Amino acid sequence: MSRVPGDLNALSERLQLLLEKVDFTPVYWDNGKVVWLDVTLLPWEEVYRETRDVNRLAEAIRKLEIRGAPAIGVAAGLGVAMALYNASGSVEELKEEGLRAISILRNTRPTAYNLFYALGRMERVIVNFEGTSPGELKEAVLSEALSIMIEDLEANLKIGELGSELITDGETILTHCNTGSLATSGLGTALGIIKTAWKKGKEIKVIATETRPLLQGARLTAWELKRAGIPFKLVTDGMVGYLFFENLVDRVILGADRITIDGYVANKIGTYTIAVLAWKHGRPFHVAAPTSTIHPVSFSEKKITIEHRSPSEVTTVLGRVEIAPKGTEALNPAFDVTPPELVTSIITERGIAWPPYPASLRRLIGSQ
Amino acid sequence: MSRVPGDLNALSERLQLLLEKVDFTPVYWDNGKVVWLDVTLLPWEEVYRETRDVNRLAEAIRKLEIRGAPAIGVAAGLGVAMALYNASGSVEELKEEGLRAISILRNTRPTAYNLFYALGRMERVIVNFEGTSPGELKEAVLSEALSIMIEDLEANLKIGELGSELITDGETILTHCNTGSLATSGLGTALGIIKTAWKKGKEIKVIATETRPLLQGARLTAWELKRAGIPFKLVTDGMVGYLFFENLVDRVILGADRITIDGYVANKIGTYTIAVLAWKHGRPFHVAAPTSTIHPVSFSEKKITIEHRSPSEVTTVLGRVEIAPKGTEALNPAFDVTPPELVTSIITERGIAWPPYPASLRRLIGSQ
Repeated sequence: MSRVPGDLNALSERLQLLLEKVDFTPVYWDNGKVVWLDVTLLPWEEVYRETRDVNRLAEAIRKLEIRGAPAIGVAAGLGVAMALYNASGSVEELKEEGLRAISILRNTRPTAYNLFYALGRMERVIVNFEGTSPGELKEAVLSEALSIMIEDLEANLKIGELGSELITDGETILTHCNTGSLATSGLGTALGIIKTAWKKGKEIKVIATETRPLLQGARLTAWELKRAGIPFKLVTDGMVGYLFFENLVDRVILGADRITIDGYVANKIGTYTIAVLAWKHGRPFHVAAPTSTIHPVSFSEKKITIEHRSPSEVTTVLGRVEIAPKGTEALNPAFDVTPPELVTSIITERGIAWPPYPASLRRLIGSQ
Repeated sequence: MSRVPGDLNALSERLQLLLEKVDFTPVYWDNGKVVWLDVTLLPWEEVYRETRDVNRLAEAIRKLEIRGAPAIGVAAGLGVAMALYNASGSVEELKEEGLRAISILRNTRPTAYNLFYALGRMERVIVNFEGTSPGELKEAVLSEALSIMIEDLEANLKIGELGSELITDGETILTHCNTGSLATSGLGTALGIIKTAWKKGKEIKVIATETRPLLQGARLTAWELKRAGIPFKLVTDGMVGYLFFENLVDRVILGADRITIDGYVANKIGTYTIAVLAWKHGRPFHVAAPTSTIHPVSFSEKKITIEHRSPSEVTTVLGRVEIAPKGTEALNPAFDVTPPELVTSIITERGIAWPPYPASLRRLIGSQ
């Protein structure tokens, strides 16, 4: 798996070409540093942060400065490369450094599968490296990290192409949370489809849920839609039922943090609520995600770990306003699970999986 | 319909006795003034406001300083009495003053039926008054306003009794918005049932939705539940699906702003979403409201006017934090409609109406 410098240059060039095709990337490699747009400050401020320290990067993921399953995966890959790049020592010492970085990054957020997918790939490169040159190991690891990013960009462009074909002129599309450039290496998944359809000239309107508690819809999706000039309206999460009842939504497209091989979708809290309403009202409910989001086990085989975050995210608004009496207890599951019978299709870079899922998803994954 | 002073004294005494049975009232009559707890400042500050000016009272209703369908009805009744009480002139001049107050108060909020119910009663007393003494007219009008308040208190106590019998030990009850003392003349409707069950010693737990955009659940229901010492957890509106999926809710009890005779329930935005989820998961969904909330027409006969409030309620949190990029458009329907097939029962002071609704609700209303 080790690569020669030529490979690395070719990868860098390919990455640059891909980045020109998307509006922007919220996370990238800069000569030994990982750089990211701190999305907790959006839409108020655009602040880029950088580090050479894997603990700082882990903190950025934990605090959601970097969020969105694909962006987390990409950042984790770059983080492992960063840990090796900035270390010195023998191949064995570098390998240890890399494995330590993997272990730190693995303990940031439990639900997004892309994190474990990316770290699994980084681990295999490190463990399987059989050379004796520390420089070659560093290059091999960085090549893998850049490959993960390249594949994510390519996946998003392909998902945008495939998904946008499903959209008809005049539709109003409901989306949830943020699944745009800010959640990936660029363009996005569900929001990438919406942006691609818009670029193709389809007359669409978007409704974005604010996505409490952390308001990724109000803060981030609204920010991206405004940049793209796509007409949209913001709603609170409780308004979703009203929208379906009043026939104001034609289609739902949203993302995923983890998809099991039998089509259970873990995604931002609120997704299951939307899925049930879409199903009740006979509206298509599409999940868009790269295949790196698919965990090739069944739901019953391995329970999906749902991250529970601090209750203070619910009892305040972004820590800026207390909204409940002091001492109020709150639940704060960050994700929920939507069962396959509510999922109209799963849009990946390898094709669109339609029910029945174990079969259709296996066909996509099988070609990996 | 005119009353002698003796009646007024008797009414005042009856009102005092009833008020001793509830925790507090957010709106009351004080010697020609209407006094109210400004709930927009809860849970941060407890500020009572008062006025002799019907325009100021209308503003308080419009700005949600007084909110909750029954509380709005009670305040409107007292407001008409206030307008007459503070005016001088002939019977005809006082009647005009009263009708002017009714017209101002009628144009505050379009959805809560209790407002129109109370103003209709006040109007009938004024129009039907045949005496020649201005003092007697003032007393007749105040008597009617106090009667509306007394009936609301009695209704809440009865709803609490009847509804609490449905609750079994160990249940977790989901409620939405605020339907407690802060939404009525005292005790509450849905939250009154919960408080009554708790007082009877039933071991219950409550889950309260925060109820964006104006956070009546986080601010008001949490405040009342803490005062009452009832264990509860706060959730965001998008978490409701998760709660049902994970089997964390046994029963839903919430209020109504307007109920048609065929069982369509207009209530705080988010209610329909909860109703669909409760139905999907086979959990009872109860609506608690006094019969003054029931508009005796069918849904098809007269469309329910849904109030649309300022988009800034969605793009900010209580005007304190901007949460979306400048210029973001938003939808802000304050209510939604839940159709009768999703409503397990409607709990009123005259009994519990079970499906089929036109028949069961007509039986309750018929005895009016």
